[in-house]
Amino acid sequence: MKRYKDLAPPPRTIMTPGPVEVDPRVLRAMSYPILGQFDPAFTDLMNETMEMLRELFVTGNQWCYPVDGTSRSGLEAVLVSLIEPGDRVLVPIYGRFGHLLTEIAERCGAEVITIEAEWGTVFDPQQVIDAIRQYRPALVAMVHGETSTGCMQPLREIGHYCREMDVLFVVDAVATIGGVPVYADKWQIDAVMGGTQKCLSVPAGMAPLTYNDRVERKLLARKSIERGLRTASEFQPAAISGHSRIASNYLDLAQLQDYWSPARLNHHTEATSMLYALREGLRILLEEGLEARFARHAENGAAIVAGVRGMGLQLFGNDQARLPVVTCIEIPPGIDGESVRSMLLEDFGIEIASSFGPLKGRIWRIGSMGYSSSRKNVLHVLGALEATLLRHGFKLPAGEGVQAALDVYARKEEVTC
Amino acid sequence: MKRYKDLAPPPRTIMTPGPVEVDPRVLRAMSYPILGQFDPAFTDLMNETMEMLRELFVTGNQWCYPVDGTSRSGLEAVLVSLIEPGDRVLVPIYGRFGHLLTEIAERCGAEVITIEAEWGTVFDPQQVIDAIRQYRPALVAMVHGETSTGCMQPLREIGHYCREMDVLFVVDAVATIGGVPVYADKWQIDAVMGGTQKCLSVPAGMAPLTYNDRVERKLLARKSIERGLRTASEFQPAAISGHSRIASNYLDLAQLQDYWSPARLNHHTEATSMLYALREGLRILLEEGLEARFARHAENGAAIVAGVRGMGLQLFGNDQARLPVVTCIEIPPGIDGESVRSMLLEDFGIEIASSFGPLKGRIWRIGSMGYSSSRKNVLHVLGALEATLLRHGFKLPAGEGVQAALDVYARKEEVTC
Repeated sequence: MKRYKDLAPPPRTIMTPGPVEVDPRVLRAMSYPILGQFDPAFTDLMNETMEMLRELFVTGNQWCYPVDGTSRSGLEAVLVSLIEPGDRVLVPIYGRFGHLLTEIAERCGAEVITIEAEWGTVFDPQQVIDAIRQYRPALVAMVHGETSTGCMQPLREIGHYCREMDVLFVVDAVATIGGVPVYADKWQIDAVMGGTQKCLSVPAGMAPLTYNDRVERKLLARKSIERGLRTASEFQPAAISGHSRIASNYLDLAQLQDYWSPARLNHHTEATSMLYALREGLRILLEEGLEARFARHAENGAAIVAGVRGMGLQLFGNDQARLPVVTCIEIPPGIDGESVRSMLLEDFGIEIASSFGPLKGRIWRIGSMGYSSSRKNVLHVLGALEATLLRHGFKLPAGEGVQAALDVYARKEEVTC
Repeated sequence: MKRYKDLAPPPRTIMTPGPVEVDPRVLRAMSYPILGQFDPAFTDLMNETMEMLRELFVTGNQWCYPVDGTSRSGLEAVLVSLIEPGDRVLVPIYGRFGHLLTEIAERCGAEVITIEAEWGTVFDPQQVIDAIRQYRPALVAMVHGETSTGCMQPLREIGHYCREMDVLFVVDAVATIGGVPVYADKWQIDAVMGGTQKCLSVPAGMAPLTYNDRVERKLLARKSIERGLRTASEFQPAAISGHSRIASNYLDLAQLQDYWSPARLNHHTEATSMLYALREGLRILLEEGLEARFARHAENGAAIVAGVRGMGLQLFGNDQARLPVVTCIEIPPGIDGESVRSMLLEDFGIEIASSFGPLKGRIWRIGSMGYSSSRKNVLHVLGALEATLLRHGFKLPAGEGVQAALDVYARKEEVTC
């Protein structure tokens, strides 16, 4: 029999746009013994997690809970539960994850209409409003922070217009939740989908989301009780007049909310250890405070931008649209981007990312999210990138990258003093 | 701000049909720092997990990997990836989870034909073969071990007939994998879906599965590259001639296998800590050995059966069809089943289960799976059940349940000596 070695992951400084380093408190939480899913000690933890998610999403919504899957399971859960075949859906695309929303909506049978902004820019909200006026969609799906391009879309005006026009507005906040302000209620977003492995700094495997009563009404109209759970009197399938059945069982939010409700109607078996992790990650976030956390992410993002510019590199993307938690850098002509990434990993133990589609091989992406968003990590990655670029023959003003980042931190301290 | 307490799950002896107790080695694995999903140190762990899954499923299949979701995500992934709208699917039902397969297949747009066996029994394989001959389905989906009724369906003859007739045969082995023999190749099963939180004793949150080249051919015919990942030349959607697109993105096995292949085409972000857990659970399983593990589960199951009978309780279900890892017990007349379960939990720290649908309130279910399947746990639950029943006024021959179980273990030792 082949022997498989003891787990021994090498130490890494993870500066990608996710997954990022996990707070040791969260890792410790996952090492606790599990509980049965209907054990009152466990359902209490589920309820506490829902409460904390309300603070994360800054919402009064009743429904705030995770789907048991990675981030895109939450995107698909919302879209497949809301979209009926033939529904018109508008997706404004400004990067890879807008294409993902399009792809999921298409598979739900939507008539998808897309508008596109060049990668590295975002939409003027008026462009989206004009498209809503022109196409009259039933639902608008949009990405808040595009990790593929390092851009962030302003949402408030679009949310207000959607509400005015009675259009459902659903937002992929996977990359921003917990690192950048996301206000579900204030921005009038009907459903917000988050992720764990980015600014929440919890391992991938859960997709926390929230939705309001506008969404719930739609879900209830499509709801059915699962075969095999119906009692004798319920055994006939519910008549769902005028609405099509939700095409997924696993991602059926109408059934998931019954599981997360006091009724606790059995659906899947809740992922215990991941729930422990999410709960602990949310405790850490609330202890730090949302505003302090956003400020930390903004400062570390600014330090990376200053440091990268300080060493003479060009940033990719529009300055006004910059997502503070992902910095995109043009790979200089003549430099092998993958060779730089390999050297960073092998010699410095640092992981940064490349990108997708049209940007593959054109940019590097440095994330600064959650537990990875620290002064220590920022200075480490800038110093290592400088050394690696020098080693690759790139001419740069040695020392200036790290100094520029230190200047950003020094300014902050002056303001604080 | 409300203070949320430190995580402190109470100690529990979990004797349900899942989730069950987790080996401390697996809990420890989850406490290790994470790695990036494309870090070679991590992709090595992914590859090792695939190798070990081949041993678990006793198969030469190339494709053995987990879906990132709880068990039913694996069921849905296989069904939604294989079933095209209008396909005829046969589901022989003998408990709740047959209904679940039906429900999922219906949502995939299948023309579902069901045959039903009374809960507490299984099918004579010939009945299923006759139904296949009569209805000529494209696919047969069946549950191997029904935790809802404690019954296990023989599969070998059905598998051989399906192969002969060129029908796809997919099996839900969530409850049996790792505790009871499941032979993917020998039984000619085209796709087997397992779970982690039962006999593998890994927390819920992953759905390991395997499928053969008959399944892969079908997947490749329906495959498309994700929007936003296509390079310029691939940017037009692939023409999928004569086949419908897979209705889910998250559960699209054609895309998932690209992610698990050397191409590592980006899909979701692999759930790092859960993968650590699955890998460690599989290492433990292979160290114990499949045959020894099956023998341990059989012995502990036999001890529970003997113990339960020894205290004068009636078992539910057909003796010939008994699933060794879940023992179903008729709740005696006049006894409040939920009150017994509450007392077991609150006074003895033991969790046993109730059941679903027509069996709700009629039976208790005692699981003996994975790390929970131990002599210590069996004797503890029998002693506690006796004490609790006496406290509820049930007349029983005190002491005889535990003695009967000890007799089972003693017989085993005689054989071994």
